[in-house]
Amino acid sequence: MAVDSQISSAPQSGMRDFLPREVRLRDWATAIITATYEQFGFTKIETPCLENIALLKRGDGGENLQLIFEVLKRGEKLDRVLGSIKDSENNGGESRHSKSLKEVRQDLSDMGLRFDLTVPLVRFYSHNQQNLPSPFKSIQIGSVWRAESAQQGRFRQFTQCDIDIFGVKSELAEIELLQATSEALVKLGFEGFTICINDRRMLSSLARYCGFEEERFESVFIALDKLDKIGLDGVGHELAGQGHKEEAIANLRSLLVTMAEATGTSEQQLETLAGKIAADSAVSQALKNIMSVVMKNADGRFNVQFEPSLVRGMGYYTGPIFEIKYPGYNYSVAGGGRYDKMVGKMSGRDVPACGFSIGFERIIGILMDEGFEPPAAMERVALIFDENRDQLPDVMAAAANLRARGMAVVVQSKKKDMRKQIDQLPAQGIAKLCLFKGDVENLEIKPL
Amino acid sequence: MAVDSQISSAPQSGMRDFLPREVRLRDWATAIITATYEQFGFTKIETPCLENIALLKRGDGGENLQLIFEVLKRGEKLDRVLGSIKDSENNGGESRHSKSLKEVRQDLSDMGLRFDLTVPLVRFYSHNQQNLPSPFKSIQIGSVWRAESAQQGRFRQFTQCDIDIFGVKSELAEIELLQATSEALVKLGFEGFTICINDRRMLSSLARYCGFEEERFESVFIALDKLDKIGLDGVGHELAGQGHKEEAIANLRSLLVTMAEATGTSEQQLETLAGKIAADSAVSQALKNIMSVVMKNADGRFNVQFEPSLVRGMGYYTGPIFEIKYPGYNYSVAGGGRYDKMVGKMSGRDVPACGFSIGFERIIGILMDEGFEPPAAMERVALIFDENRDQLPDVMAAAANLRARGMAVVVQSKKKDMRKQIDQLPAQGIAKLCLFKGDVENLEIKPL
Repeated sequence: MAVDSQISSAPQSGMRDFLPREVRLRDWATAIITATYEQFGFTKIETPCLENIALLKRGDGGENLQLIFEVLKRGEKLDRVLGSIKDSENNGGESRHSKSLKEVRQDLSDMGLRFDLTVPLVRFYSHNQQNLPSPFKSIQIGSVWRAESAQQGRFRQFTQCDIDIFGVKSELAEIELLQATSEALVKLGFEGFTICINDRRMLSSLARYCGFEEERFESVFIALDKLDKIGLDGVGHELAGQGHKEEAIANLRSLLVTMAEATGTSEQQLETLAGKIAADSAVSQALKNIMSVVMKNADGRFNVQFEPSLVRGMGYYTGPIFEIKYPGYNYSVAGGGRYDKMVGKMSGRDVPACGFSIGFERIIGILMDEGFEPPAAMERVALIFDENRDQLPDVMAAAANLRARGMAVVVQSKKKDMRKQIDQLPAQGIAKLCLFKGDVENLEIKPL
Repeated sequence: MAVDSQISSAPQSGMRDFLPREVRLRDWATAIITATYEQFGFTKIETPCLENIALLKRGDGGENLQLIFEVLKRGEKLDRVLGSIKDSENNGGESRHSKSLKEVRQDLSDMGLRFDLTVPLVRFYSHNQQNLPSPFKSIQIGSVWRAESAQQGRFRQFTQCDIDIFGVKSELAEIELLQATSEALVKLGFEGFTICINDRRMLSSLARYCGFEEERFESVFIALDKLDKIGLDGVGHELAGQGHKEEAIANLRSLLVTMAEATGTSEQQLETLAGKIAADSAVSQALKNIMSVVMKNADGRFNVQFEPSLVRGMGYYTGPIFEIKYPGYNYSVAGGGRYDKMVGKMSGRDVPACGFSIGFERIIGILMDEGFEPPAAMERVALIFDENRDQLPDVMAAAANLRARGMAVVVQSKKKDMRKQIDQLPAQGIAKLCLFKGDVENLEIKPL
């Protein structure tokens, strides 16, 4: 037999095969999350996995733009691109059609695999707006792809799980996103997590108060975003290295120290800071409203906390931003915020937008760490028969009877070593056994 | 505002956005199919969407190999490939490292999007066999991609829905596949469909009996596969054009005419043909067993029919093959068969294998043609409040009360034209309305 031994049967680097047990957990979590979001009035949509490469590369995606899996053009289109190289070389690069290798490189692909669900959602909304209700509340659960370093154990295909609200200017949007997401986490068995909240406009007021240059705020935020990892000294060092004013850095440090030492409720801390940095009172009031309504709903199951140094990586946020932390894990299990300018960039007309994303792989990872087993939807029974007796019609009738009684039936012919065969059943989630003895109606079912 | 007006907001050619209503139908169908297959003892697995390009291109995929979306190599690997073009050109193609553009073309990608779920499944089984039960019965529901001509209205991303059984030599496998799939179709509301059955080995006996050359059987089958579309004359013409013996073609024609005119049950027809063409009696006996057990289970809801000209496109089938036809549609809604040699090609050790695939997009298309609406999981209620009154905390408490009563709640602030706002609710699947009047507990819910 000709064997393609040179092709490994392993999945591609950074990608995963899911065996039945893991799919069961993932599907269970997906069903819980979906049902919860539906209770909050969200509805599920789907977009294609491939998008226009120009759309994906347009910006706003931060470092993800470097991680796009690009799809090669096909047929004549590809021939034309490759042909242009030849032209270039033959003409010493001076032909009218000639292209540098760098240009050719950029010309090889026309589509890419989506790296998140937000860029496709904004395209979807721009395209389908006239067929969607306003406000529009979407659920998206789907795969995204990033060419991450697989050596560091990062996944190159993983599931994202987003809800978004388009068309709501008020903090009703933030409140619903936070309530729905925290409710979903509680239903998945998570308790004691903390919702951290800040606002991009608060961050701007803070940077302004400290005396950073207005046009360099973004780099201040990027440094501040690392506070968790590199500490206050690290942030100060990074800002100094970028040539920010020493006085501004010192102001930021002292402000952060003051905030870290502050006592009182989140609302009080927010009020103190807002007053100090002269933040827009409408901004701080909305943030207070969000926190108080969500806190009211928490009922001791989780916390809500104002976090003045919270930044969130993406550049597209324009208002409140939020993140959920789970004790014992140093990464966030959910994150999101308001991005009112993104639809306008696509369609020419701004539409208020706000989203929250559960870190699905992180949630699944924690559930697996905790040894969690989702409840079985159906009882699984093995129906074992002696193949030599040629009783297939009767065996199938017996299986149908068991199914009619609500069981999932695994029909197996008796193996030589039946003891071993039975010992292997529990690993398949099978807890009961029925040995077929020829009678279709009277079936004796025993626990293993 | 800077608008990227040059980037269309439409999905890429041949790909689709799914709005909430269509997702609801697709998810409903998926849930029905999955639950049915689970009752038959199958369990769900998942593989990555990207596979090694060498694996995908290895063969067995027929014309699908021409339709693979290939993923561009990244970073240094890509630079090296593009660099080799320069080498080639500078050295007049004689450098040791030089490559023709055709070679470069083949070297540009390292992965591809899967074009079906069978090739990845065989890789999955080869890789994970030691962690899987034997026999192993899998469910796969997932997207596949093919660079089909979008002009002809073909989808370039679509869902496949497969069940497969590994490790069962006997016709128990075929029977379970056919029973599970027909049961799923019945539960989706399909009745009166016909399961057509044949066997690749019967086809070989038939070609041998007619006098075709043994080594050219495959081309006979490819022509015969078109019988539905081009008729008996067309098949004869195609075979003649390929230089097959006139006498063999005449024999085939007369045999097919005889079969088409034959009366009696499928089992009788099978017996007559098997006798005439001297088919292996074990083969025809197994086929008869399959038909009779599945027929017994049909209970008037569908038909089972021996179809001596059924071929199925893929070259990898080795035994029984089957297809399901639904009245009024000229394409099959499900297809599959036995492929005992495919695992061996990957792992070096043959494992009996058999699969059946529901044409998910076709099923959904028919359900939409028929105007089918899946039952709603939850009642959707609109909770409308007057935003000016700043009652967000109470409104959210009211919404929580409605959710606790099992409803899906869509909270909306009152628009200026409330009549229009209410008129738009039914299109969102909302049948009931609750106008918030300040009382969190006493909520009046009215039908629209």
